[in-house]
Amino acid sequence: MSSDRDWSGRWVTVLGGAGFIGSNLVIRLVELGARVTVVDGLIPGCGGHPENLAPVAPGIVFTAADLSAEPIPGPVTAADVVFDLLGDPAHGRSVVEPQRDLRHNLVAQVAVLEAIRRSSHRPFVVLASTRSVYGRPQRLPVGEDHPIAPPDPNAIHKYAAEQYAVLYQQMYGLQVVRLRLTNVYGPRQGNLDPAHGVTGYLLGRFLRGEPVLLFGGGTFCRDWLAVDDAVNALLAAGSRPQVAGHVINIGHSEPRSLLDFATLAREILGRGEIRSAPVPEEQRTIDIGDYWTNPQCAAERLGWVASTALRPGLTRALDFYLATPEGARWPPAPSHS
Amino acid sequence: MSSDRDWSGRWVTVLGGAGFIGSNLVIRLVELGARVTVVDGLIPGCGGHPENLAPVAPGIVFTAADLSAEPIPGPVTAADVVFDLLGDPAHGRSVVEPQRDLRHNLVAQVAVLEAIRRSSHRPFVVLASTRSVYGRPQRLPVGEDHPIAPPDPNAIHKYAAEQYAVLYQQMYGLQVVRLRLTNVYGPRQGNLDPAHGVTGYLLGRFLRGEPVLLFGGGTFCRDWLAVDDAVNALLAAGSRPQVAGHVINIGHSEPRSLLDFATLAREILGRGEIRSAPVPEEQRTIDIGDYWTNPQCAAERLGWVASTALRPGLTRALDFYLATPEGARWPPAPSHS
Repeated sequence: MSSDRDWSGRWVTVLGGAGFIGSNLVIRLVELGARVTVVDGLIPGCGGHPENLAPVAPGIVFTAADLSAEPIPGPVTAADVVFDLLGDPAHGRSVVEPQRDLRHNLVAQVAVLEAIRRSSHRPFVVLASTRSVYGRPQRLPVGEDHPIAPPDPNAIHKYAAEQYAVLYQQMYGLQVVRLRLTNVYGPRQGNLDPAHGVTGYLLGRFLRGEPVLLFGGGTFCRDWLAVDDAVNALLAAGSRPQVAGHVINIGHSEPRSLLDFATLAREILGRGEIRSAPVPEEQRTIDIGDYWTNPQCAAERLGWVASTALRPGLTRALDFYLATPEGARWPPAPSHS
Repeated sequence: MSSDRDWSGRWVTVLGGAGFIGSNLVIRLVELGARVTVVDGLIPGCGGHPENLAPVAPGIVFTAADLSAEPIPGPVTAADVVFDLLGDPAHGRSVVEPQRDLRHNLVAQVAVLEAIRRSSHRPFVVLASTRSVYGRPQRLPVGEDHPIAPPDPNAIHKYAAEQYAVLYQQMYGLQVVRLRLTNVYGPRQGNLDPAHGVTGYLLGRFLRGEPVLLFGGGTFCRDWLAVDDAVNALLAAGSRPQVAGHVINIGHSEPRSLLDFATLAREILGRGEIRSAPVPEEQRTIDIGDYWTNPQCAAERLGWVASTALRPGLTRALDFYLATPEGARWPPAPSHS
């Protein structure tokens, strides 16, 4: 069964669909013929921006709503599948403003699950969580049975949201699969604010002719995941209601250092300066060292493996930024027209 | 070193100090000569009631504040020791109103820890958590290394609060010990609302001449803990800053069934009717079966073991209710004087 064919004509709602990963997912779903509603609060700092959805704006329904404070819009409960990518992805900011993070990553999440469990129609929910719930890895690669040790408030809240998903499946029969995503990069990732991911910020600095500072030389490794691969994983999960109740790590099988990532990006771009800098004091306490995913569970349960190597993934990301007038400063500042 | 002598003249703040366990702790601390400030929102349903503190009202400072919404009062950060018993203890209500529970058990908790970490003075914090974070026991007795599986939103929020305590110790050097308390009973436990504990409610029904219904015959076992023992455990923890960073189960070493508990209470009281009733459907999903604590860690780290057997514990609880004019309906309705 081709999971691509599954989406034609289906009612799909994407929470956080104006964000980096969300918008890439929405664009693909529209290409596949799904009937897509996007709910996004466009909350400053959370990563959602209308420009991310420009290629498909006429073909989707867009609802602006801050789900931590406003009623849950109807399409959340009326959909066949809900991709739940809501929230604030900024781990660093959650340290500075934990109450803000609590609101956007947990209060909003509880409101969504409450609305769904009270509804007569029960969409299948694909809940995006984060590899950061594991904290500093005790062993590598990291499987789903690795102990939980949130290294920041963001991860505490995302893990609580996961526990809600488990509980609501037990208590009310909600169908929810949890995906713990590793570091994702690619087109439409914000490249102005390091809070939206070191990867986008690093590419943005190259594009703007600014030197790239790698704390501690950037020697730590991650299983950097191209957003097209992340979208494939989300679609694979959304096509398989039988994975409800499971938690699945979504990552790449080939870890590379941040220095490798930066060096390859500079090579593809043909320019750029890389400098090493001491690790700032406030980073040390939340530094988790190396991380990479054990891809076995995703392969078995979703039939999915990451297939994009770093070079083509980085080429596609840089091509996006270079082909877009505002690409060196993404997302562009809101226009006043 | 007598831990009782430690408290004379010390500045102590008790959050949730007008509640059941909190008020018993406050009364003991005043007896021991501590300078006690109570902060309690007196939020309907959370268990705090001024009558609980009547015996010591002239000897304490009382501050009414809902810490989920109001600024954190100065005595929270100025104390030597903070006993943190804030929140809503009602597991059943957290299922019906998860957002309310989130506010009182997590939003308020984050506000407290944020205030402490931003303060120059750093009190030692004794954080009261709950055995319910373990969910349905996979093995008995339950030690601190038992897997976490919150069976209701209350336990999700209490566990998130614990994770904050761990994180804030790592990141900011806060000194916090976490105590996971089992079912506590005794003087001042509310006996009108089952949400405040099956034990108080059961005794209240006997006292009011109402039949006691035991779902499924009350065959499940718990390590019912007399509140005087719980207070001793809290004081032992508060006297030992060296236990900061640890999590310790607080329970009794002799599990008894709820039927045993009810039968013994009826015998002591000399009257009462016990009936068995089918388990209601909505109870089944959150039923966790038997639970009792492995007391070893508490004995080793706190030098504390529960010393009150069920008969003297129940006698003391019933004596309190019987000796008080409003004891059959505790807490009494607010007077209008």
